[in-house]
Amino acid sequence: MHREVTAFSWVPDFAQGYVRDLRVRWALEEAGLPYTQDLIDHEIKNGPAYRCRQPFGQVPAYREGTLDMFESGAIVLHIAEQSEQLSPRDRSGRARMTSWVLAALNSIEPLVSQLADIKLFHKGESWTVERLPQVETMLRKRFAELANWLGTKSYLEGEFTAGDLIMTTVLRDVADPELVEEFANLAAYVERCQTRPAFVRAMRAQLEAFHAHALG
Amino acid sequence: MHREVTAFSWVPDFAQGYVRDLRVRWALEEAGLPYTQDLIDHEIKNGPAYRCRQPFGQVPAYREGTLDMFESGAIVLHIAEQSEQLSPRDRSGRARMTSWVLAALNSIEPLVSQLADIKLFHKGESWTVERLPQVETMLRKRFAELANWLGTKSYLEGEFTAGDLIMTTVLRDVADPELVEEFANLAAYVERCQTRPAFVRAMRAQLEAFHAHALG
Repeated sequence: MHREVTAFSWVPDFAQGYVRDLRVRWALEEAGLPYTQDLIDHEIKNGPAYRCRQPFGQVPAYREGTLDMFESGAIVLHIAEQSEQLSPRDRSGRARMTSWVLAALNSIEPLVSQLADIKLFHKGESWTVERLPQVETMLRKRFAELANWLGTKSYLEGEFTAGDLIMTTVLRDVADPELVEEFANLAAYVERCQTRPAFVRAMRAQLEAFHAHALG
Repeated sequence: MHREVTAFSWVPDFAQGYVRDLRVRWALEEAGLPYTQDLIDHEIKNGPAYRCRQPFGQVPAYREGTLDMFESGAIVLHIAEQSEQLSPRDRSGRARMTSWVLAALNSIEPLVSQLADIKLFHKGESWTVERLPQVETMLRKRFAELANWLGTKSYLEGEFTAGDLIMTTVLRDVADPELVEEFANLAAYVERCQTRPAFVRAMRAQLEAFHAHALG
């Protein structure tokens, strides 16, 4: 069955290594499933054909035979169903994996995005001065709760799952890394996940496309 | 198999009808699966026993026999696997349903939450004046894209799925309803979903607990 992930042919420096097709590439690498990439530019992403596949014009979209889906979190869940490298096979283990994927995307990432708005995308705007400490406080609370759960475990449920994959991509996006480093076990966890060979291969694949583009 | 969802025994007026156990109750009602509720207060939610079930002290957590999971989006996905009322049975249909659940929770709800921060939880703070139009612009863009996808369809994929369920709970949370009403088909869609008998039963069940609490 042919698998294909869409990705951008080029993004600005600050986004390189952080575009969300990384999640899907990583999942496919963990699962040992070969795939091809469909590199698109910003004109294609806003065109009607791509909007039929991805209503918000985001990357990635994903094809698997005749199956066509979008949202990196959904795609990773779909791939996790196919691989015991990403999820236990029993219902209970799958439910735990799913819980962590959604916790990362719905209970933690929205705060991480707000921090990125403040520190990067709206840097220097006056509203950010008053808002920053509020967001930092909420993030610290979540990180403390997450660190407390993780404790001395290597991964959130003991063994690596898609939950750790998504959580890592959220935590490595934190615009102020010191916020994560306040929690030594969390920082070590992110490092542990990012040194997995499948992550390294996924990262290389995303960056290669940008390098090829830069070379024309 | 016994199913149990945790919910709060009481919340302030503005939150009544909006606590996220509503999503799980609604899914169970659509699926025709009986359940019991475990009502907890804020002391229990912060206690170590509940934190073992829900690391962030949120509601809902969910038990199904010996299976124990959390995050409303994850629980709804888990229930959707068990019911053709919530998801097509074929892989492709399930992938579409999953895409929409994640789109609602990761591409739309984070902006809806920011609007709630500005309009409700931090109302009157000076930073909100500068930030409000930025958030409104981003929300309008997303709503326009969503309305464009929906078109004249009754539901996002034609037939009702868990994707519509989660999307409805996100759109009804928009602190400024006029932002949704700018898109007539979106407003009609939210109304269509909220008048489903299963939604009405789920809402009644959440509110009944609060009424019982108020009566002591």
